[in-house]
Amino acid sequence: MKQVNVGIIGFGTVGAGTAEILLKNREIIKKRVGLDIILKRVADLDLDSDRGITLPQGVLSNDAAGLLNDPEIDIVVELIGGLTTAKQFISTALKNGKHVVTANKALLAEFGSELYGIASQKGVNLAYEAAVGGGMPVIVALREGLAANNTTTIMGILNGTSNYILTRMSKDGLPYEEAVEGAIKLGYAEDPPTLDVDGTDAAHKLAILISLAYGAPAPFESIYKEGIDKLTQEDIQFADEFGYCIKLLTVARDLGGEVEARVHPAMLPKGHILSNVNEAFNAVFIEGDYVGPTLYYGQGAGRRPTGSAVVSDIMSIARKIKAGSDMQVCPLGFADPSGQKITIQSMKNLKTAYYFRFSALDKPGVLSKIAGILGEKNISISSVIQKGREIEGVVPIVMLTHEAIEKDVTEALEKIDRLDVLQDKTMMIRVMG
Amino acid sequence: MKQVNVGIIGFGTVGAGTAEILLKNREIIKKRVGLDIILKRVADLDLDSDRGITLPQGVLSNDAAGLLNDPEIDIVVELIGGLTTAKQFISTALKNGKHVVTANKALLAEFGSELYGIASQKGVNLAYEAAVGGGMPVIVALREGLAANNTTTIMGILNGTSNYILTRMSKDGLPYEEAVEGAIKLGYAEDPPTLDVDGTDAAHKLAILISLAYGAPAPFESIYKEGIDKLTQEDIQFADEFGYCIKLLTVARDLGGEVEARVHPAMLPKGHILSNVNEAFNAVFIEGDYVGPTLYYGQGAGRRPTGSAVVSDIMSIARKIKAGSDMQVCPLGFADPSGQKITIQSMKNLKTAYYFRFSALDKPGVLSKIAGILGEKNISISSVIQKGREIEGVVPIVMLTHEAIEKDVTEALEKIDRLDVLQDKTMMIRVMG
Repeated sequence: MKQVNVGIIGFGTVGAGTAEILLKNREIIKKRVGLDIILKRVADLDLDSDRGITLPQGVLSNDAAGLLNDPEIDIVVELIGGLTTAKQFISTALKNGKHVVTANKALLAEFGSELYGIASQKGVNLAYEAAVGGGMPVIVALREGLAANNTTTIMGILNGTSNYILTRMSKDGLPYEEAVEGAIKLGYAEDPPTLDVDGTDAAHKLAILISLAYGAPAPFESIYKEGIDKLTQEDIQFADEFGYCIKLLTVARDLGGEVEARVHPAMLPKGHILSNVNEAFNAVFIEGDYVGPTLYYGQGAGRRPTGSAVVSDIMSIARKIKAGSDMQVCPLGFADPSGQKITIQSMKNLKTAYYFRFSALDKPGVLSKIAGILGEKNISISSVIQKGREIEGVVPIVMLTHEAIEKDVTEALEKIDRLDVLQDKTMMIRVMG
Repeated sequence: MKQVNVGIIGFGTVGAGTAEILLKNREIIKKRVGLDIILKRVADLDLDSDRGITLPQGVLSNDAAGLLNDPEIDIVVELIGGLTTAKQFISTALKNGKHVVTANKALLAEFGSELYGIASQKGVNLAYEAAVGGGMPVIVALREGLAANNTTTIMGILNGTSNYILTRMSKDGLPYEEAVEGAIKLGYAEDPPTLDVDGTDAAHKLAILISLAYGAPAPFESIYKEGIDKLTQEDIQFADEFGYCIKLLTVARDLGGEVEARVHPAMLPKGHILSNVNEAFNAVFIEGDYVGPTLYYGQGAGRRPTGSAVVSDIMSIARKIKAGSDMQVCPLGFADPSGQKITIQSMKNLKTAYYFRFSALDKPGVLSKIAGILGEKNISISSVIQKGREIEGVVPIVMLTHEAIEKDVTEALEKIDRLDVLQDKTMMIRVMG
């Protein structure tokens, strides 16, 4: 064995980045692995677009089936995205005894279990460093570097598009819609950017991290998600006055028996290290019972960083092939996952602090009515801002609470929103505790 | 093979942490690896001290030689520190065909080359995640997660003791000596803390990171180092006025042919992510040609985080043993390091910006004389603070320069310090560019 042959399916952004690295960094890759890694085939339906990289003659074709069945291909790299076809390609590759590398977080979050099973059964690797956090090596950190720990907390900024939009809103004072337009223009967001701004993409990544941390597929549909599309410039500014910034936060916590798992906009104290993660960057804070707090930061997307992660997986598999060992770390990092099961906590039971912005008429007794309802539900207020500035006849009353229970908060806000002095639905943002 | 047997030599802080994790997290370790990892022997000269952890009967002895020659021990963990004896233990273990895990950065930085050679020759693993950055998994990140990249920059805060001292100086306004005393009292520093505050410890860690990044042992003695012991409260405050904080910074850069490698106090812009790394925390910023900037952050020392890193190495080796593959990633991550050689750039040729604090008599024409000498050496000034506040008859003149060449700076300062209006040696701090 002098070389390892790679076939890439999907010659889009990440596919082109992966091909570029395999071709341009071939020398250092060879020195590190001790084997030549050859890009033997690339399959894509589009044979004509310029991807800024010239493949060797005969490498590009539209023949995915040929690639999957080519006995000379050792590693198949799936980069077409989406669910149905990608799943079919990956399971065919695994069944053909090929190792697979993918960046497909949606597929792994929703159908990972089935694919992990096939990989384990066939004794091949299914690697996905690129599925979370772009180039930043958080998968290998969690699966290997922190393997000695019970993971207590995972908290991160995992969607670069949302983070870019929120950065523009807070640094440049842009309203949400303009910030989104800017992100689309710069290629940071799809048009429309639904899966990014509604929290789905971050929830996919969270499901993968939870699966790795706890050794069992996470029930993706039970992960709570809420997007950034209802945030206003007012909220950004009030948060700032309270000493916070707003991020689309991804949180998982081991509650002992249950796992807290949620994606939503959250207020972070400005001194917190995650609050300085701006633009399209990603970061994940992972705490283990022995290692304590650790943090990983990098570009969460893009051709070059994501390509870097894909190639690191290819190299890691090539090292195993070279050592004559086809399989070592199973996809979820647990060789013996017996008894591992993940139950997601109901959001009703979440305990956290809250920010409320009430759109109230400027009448006497309003604050006392609101405070009364909160008091009935054991929600205690830690600070209030009520300023004279009227916005369309309504005076915003803004408050922060101490830790409260989500169920109580939901019930209190329903009751408050029925008051006739309330002109609009109350804005609620969870505050990082 | 149902279990892997581990022997620890050195039952001090990290040894006790490692033993504790192996005993207390045995279940999750077993589930992840698929094998039971048994702490079979611990050797230490001190058989009596309470380390807060009870070893099973018969595990602790003072018989290091017996441990090294025990055919049932698969992995030897060296945690005694120091050079001579540790080196002897490690090479005996490797020659006996045992895998070795160590946290000994001094030994690896100064004699790594010899030990890596023995490990490669015997086909066993020599792992050292705990040698850099405590529990934060920066070794696996650099060796595997970022393997597809040419490393362009490594920049970090790698000595927790110095960082703790600098944090107390800047946040609590303590003078250097008092901050050091506090660090010793809290157990963050040895007494005296020489190797921490003089930059040696950080330089050891840098040598290891450079070796991993470029695939060849770094010439440790060529790495420039300068400690934090000459920093004053005045410098911290002037830095603050200019919008900077002062950190003991560790830097390596690929200059194409040569590697820049240095450890010294440096001024970092307050907005920079490393400037928010405080207390005893460590962080490393690593940039690769494709992945772009990435950052790793965690507790750089201590029983639990360092133990976490040691156990992650043990698990990674146990996974290889289980897969029947004894050797995959050689110690420096380069299977074929032919032609790799590291030459460290002479500090004379360093290009960076500078901070100067001149202790000048308050006489007319002083600034013009200083500026004149700087001008002769092509050192251009970007800002100056000269305030009325006299300190023991001397007025500090403080300036920041644009990028200049270290050789010119050294020559200019020598000339300036000979001026009869200069009452004390000029303080020079490099500014992160």
